[in-house]
Amino acid sequence: MVGKVVALAGGVGGAKLVLGLSRLLPGDQLSVVINTGDDEEFHGLHVSPDLDTVMYTLAGLSNQETGWGLAGDTFQALAMLGRYGAETWFNLGDRDLATHLRRTQLLRQGATLTEVTGQLSRYLGITHELIPMSDDPVGTVLTTPNGDLPMQQYFVRERSQPPVSAVRYVGADTARPSPRFLEVLAEADLVVFCPSNPRLSLGPILALPGVRKALAAERLRGQRIAVSPLVGDAAFRGPAAKIMAELGEEVSCVGVARQYRGLCDTFLIDPQDARFAPAIAQLGLTPVTTKIMMNSEADKVALARQILDIGGG
Amino acid sequence: MVGKVVALAGGVGGAKLVLGLSRLLPGDQLSVVINTGDDEEFHGLHVSPDLDTVMYTLAGLSNQETGWGLAGDTFQALAMLGRYGAETWFNLGDRDLATHLRRTQLLRQGATLTEVTGQLSRYLGITHELIPMSDDPVGTVLTTPNGDLPMQQYFVRERSQPPVSAVRYVGADTARPSPRFLEVLAEADLVVFCPSNPRLSLGPILALPGVRKALAAERLRGQRIAVSPLVGDAAFRGPAAKIMAELGEEVSCVGVARQYRGLCDTFLIDPQDARFAPAIAQLGLTPVTTKIMMNSEADKVALARQILDIGGG
Repeated sequence: MVGKVVALAGGVGGAKLVLGLSRLLPGDQLSVVINTGDDEEFHGLHVSPDLDTVMYTLAGLSNQETGWGLAGDTFQALAMLGRYGAETWFNLGDRDLATHLRRTQLLRQGATLTEVTGQLSRYLGITHELIPMSDDPVGTVLTTPNGDLPMQQYFVRERSQPPVSAVRYVGADTARPSPRFLEVLAEADLVVFCPSNPRLSLGPILALPGVRKALAAERLRGQRIAVSPLVGDAAFRGPAAKIMAELGEEVSCVGVARQYRGLCDTFLIDPQDARFAPAIAQLGLTPVTTKIMMNSEADKVALARQILDIGGG
Repeated sequence: MVGKVVALAGGVGGAKLVLGLSRLLPGDQLSVVINTGDDEEFHGLHVSPDLDTVMYTLAGLSNQETGWGLAGDTFQALAMLGRYGAETWFNLGDRDLATHLRRTQLLRQGATLTEVTGQLSRYLGITHELIPMSDDPVGTVLTTPNGDLPMQQYFVRERSQPPVSAVRYVGADTARPSPRFLEVLAEADLVVFCPSNPRLSLGPILALPGVRKALAAERLRGQRIAVSPLVGDAAFRGPAAKIMAELGEEVSCVGVARQYRGLCDTFLIDPQDARFAPAIAQLGLTPVTTKIMMNSEADKVALARQILDIGGG
């Protein structure tokens, strides 16, 4: 039997696996630590895209077609903001805006992002703890020929088009991990690296001071499991493969595994990547070949179950 | 021919007459100074109910049935704010929220409320200048058995039910009138007191330092025209009559005229109030009996035309 599980998650891929885990684990056995390197201010509001993707997913409110926002949301406020000459390249639905309004107001009143996230998710009926990686600002910035672009500008406004020559996590060296992050990590029996972009989603989490050391704790050895976000040379979603190629990395699950070297024990890859198992083993990670594509909720639960089986075995 | 006109306005009644005036006067001949004593923060946003009522009216966007907000607006964000446990007694539509978001962001960036109001109204295609009475905070507060209530709490949350024993304009003694207010007043050939609540809508404007003195300028004598917001013992709209009674004032156009004594020269009253003409004349105001109810746009233009005829005569 597995004990307490901590999942490290970014956007859509992370939310999918977290949903599967949430179906198998009660609230006190699963904590989700979420990337905030994509956070940005729009129209004076604090927007946390990855936090919200996970929160809306667990609340059963997410728009699964787009991968962001709330199902059935409307865009009246955004259209009106456009009439006032505001930039509207970042899609913000009307119900989604309420999340950012409430978050921003509570932050201005002095609450930490961790406290705000806890409050918002409880009001949506979520029983599992969602924890932003840090209460301090960290900004994922991509160096491109168009200049240094914060993540959302690169990903949404520029549609991931400009070639990337470097990725930085601005502020990560001085930001402190959320106190709850360190607490749940100290109590964890199993850590799951969700199939999120290793550089843009989990990279910021791993860049925070003390996180790599905490993950290296003796108690966790053998209990750190990652899922590849790549099958063959393609990501399930998003610009992970493109950016890995531009940064001169091997565009395959091996390239991802290399980034988790020394941090993970087990690495789940797709059956069609079975040929890479030896290379992954050479990196010191135990390869496990299994179905990692999650199209249905049954897929998500099945993958989660397999992870818990490995972790509890 | 009338020259430059300044209209002093509050909410719905003011917006109606301002619409009529705007149909007759080009942008450089009409400036509207609007009450901000009702302004309040909701969900961290700066909401200016009277400014918006006039702005939406002149932009052709106002909801004429409710008297507030935008026609056809939706309330998705507000419903979601309610899910997060936020107070939702103040109705904020989705498109309306965009106004408050943009205003708040521009204010936080250092613009004055006057500058913000100018920018928002220009984007909505409004050619007449809308001027908040002040860039400094002034709060209309009503003393009731339930405690001191800011205007929106009294008017919206409490539905104007509690008896009122006093009305104060908190901050009015130190607030400065908007620089544009004083400039347009210095150039005015005609000042129109719109049929707004004398205590709750025009009272805060008149309470600002220097305003009464500027209105008393020799140049303006005979050129200050007010329209009664009451017919018989009833206001067209809102709690004006109720509050006048609770404050021990005469509930009629005479009670209103008394508040404008020394500030106005001409006072327009409804034909059914013709019997009050002598009492108004005794207060030093010239009574003019005319149709002051504005149900249609034609009514609004006709009343505006009559005012301009008096002012230009």
